[in-house]
Amino acid sequence: MTPHVSDILLEALAANAAAVNDEMAHLLPVPDGPERRVHDAMRYSALDGGKRLRPFLTVQAASLFNVSPAAALRVGCALEMVHCYSLIHDDLPCMDDDDLRRGRPTCHRQFDEATALLAGDALQSRAFEVLAAESTHPDPAVRCELVWQLAHAAGGMGMVGGQMVDLQAAQLTMDMADITRLQQMKTGRLIGFACEAGAILGKAPSSLRLALKNYAHDLGLAFQIADDLLDVQGDEMQVGKKLGKDADAGKATFVSLLGVEHARAQADMLAEQACRHLDPFGDAAHLLRLTARYVVTRSV
Amino acid sequence: MTPHVSDILLEALAANAAAVNDEMAHLLPVPDGPERRVHDAMRYSALDGGKRLRPFLTVQAASLFNVSPAAALRVGCALEMVHCYSLIHDDLPCMDDDDLRRGRPTCHRQFDEATALLAGDALQSRAFEVLAAESTHPDPAVRCELVWQLAHAAGGMGMVGGQMVDLQAAQLTMDMADITRLQQMKTGRLIGFACEAGAILGKAPSSLRLALKNYAHDLGLAFQIADDLLDVQGDEMQVGKKLGKDADAGKATFVSLLGVEHARAQADMLAEQACRHLDPFGDAAHLLRLTARYVVTRSV
Repeated sequence: MTPHVSDILLEALAANAAAVNDEMAHLLPVPDGPERRVHDAMRYSALDGGKRLRPFLTVQAASLFNVSPAAALRVGCALEMVHCYSLIHDDLPCMDDDDLRRGRPTCHRQFDEATALLAGDALQSRAFEVLAAESTHPDPAVRCELVWQLAHAAGGMGMVGGQMVDLQAAQLTMDMADITRLQQMKTGRLIGFACEAGAILGKAPSSLRLALKNYAHDLGLAFQIADDLLDVQGDEMQVGKKLGKDADAGKATFVSLLGVEHARAQADMLAEQACRHLDPFGDAAHLLRLTARYVVTRSV
Repeated sequence: MTPHVSDILLEALAANAAAVNDEMAHLLPVPDGPERRVHDAMRYSALDGGKRLRPFLTVQAASLFNVSPAAALRVGCALEMVHCYSLIHDDLPCMDDDDLRRGRPTCHRQFDEATALLAGDALQSRAFEVLAAESTHPDPAVRCELVWQLAHAAGGMGMVGGQMVDLQAAQLTMDMADITRLQQMKTGRLIGFACEAGAILGKAPSSLRLALKNYAHDLGLAFQIADDLLDVQGDEMQVGKKLGKDADAGKATFVSLLGVEHARAQADMLAEQACRHLDPFGDAAHLLRLTARYVVTRSV
């Protein structure tokens, strides 16, 4: 990857992150009255945070099908709300008990546990409210499918199911198949939705929808292996959260099972494989290909 | 209210509760794999519990418009999942820290805090997944509106917003208007959805939808005043949860502001007012009228 190519992606990511922040700020108004505290907490955790990779994937996937960028951004923001709610709950004392997220105090540290719990709950509700709103897309069948897919990806058979497995991971003997399944549930399903949502918005033929799903599958695993590598090799200040926790907890990871070098090679291989699924889209999928290479080389 | 009339309602409630339990059991399957723990917790809290008043309201309201009873039951179950998730999170140590719910250990007592947190999260996702599913109603516009309305009623502007206010209630000086607003958010919005969902499913004219909304408004307040009365006068064994908590916490309630007798009279008045909103439906709304009278006389 040449520095020039990387610049193109980083600029596109930054522009997308700014658009996501604007839209999220608009979608999360703060009412008067004492309930404003939970809205402040929602905004604290949902605004100005992270790479906004998931909404970027949605916007990029949607661009392959001439979808209105506003609609794609809206759906990306709903997805990001689910991601943010999961981070808030994940950081709570009964889960990972983290003090730091993206270099700032976690939501329950900045507010309190009850407020953080409620902020996560309300962000999840808000995500579905946004997806179901007429202003997101004129066709109710499209909105309904988005709601169903995101709810399925986020729930007990998807992200939350993966978190449940992860909580028991230290007590289980997990091989590569188990870890792969865990990570596909915990992080893969939302990344899958991010890409598939573009196809749903664009009423894409099933072959192209499947191509994006396959891309997301490999991208998600590559992303997770890179995350595991960062967890053992990353810079805590730069990453903005506590590292080395999986090893401390005695959990198997891609890196503990494969070793650093083999894991790195596997991540690169998956990124290349992800790109090949994008062949049917030709040059239009250029940024999605750069994204696949980026997730395995990022240091944040 | 004659004993005979009450029997009719109690029989209808019991039949509905049985139907809700069957449908919930069907809607909450338990997968293999270590994620089953969160599904066990979801079922523990969502099955065989409570009067199932909210789904009953949905089924009864829907019956006024010739809606398929299966569709109404499905929507009622989705709503009940949101209600159950809110109870699980409400019982957590960082919120009410309750050990007992419906006479059994609360979810985090039976499992653990992290599992209870995730079970609540997954129940919320599942509710929207069920509402958005084609099998719930053939018209995606109807399903979308149900998703939007439930998400709005449950989120930061509704139930969760009300919980946020409630958490600060002991520190605030609240008058009747404040308490009414708090309770309309915390419990009123979901009861409002319960009734309005019947009208949405039946594509009811707006005048009849409004009549049901007004009924729900008065019913919800009557319900809450009755709850406050039970909190000071009820039998802990019979009610199945700890009582007297509001007074212990120094929170204003309808009873602390109005006194027992005045509060009782207010609840009765609201129940009668609720019934009058049902005039346009004639005898078809008989069970909904009995319900309004029941909620202010119940001992559980």
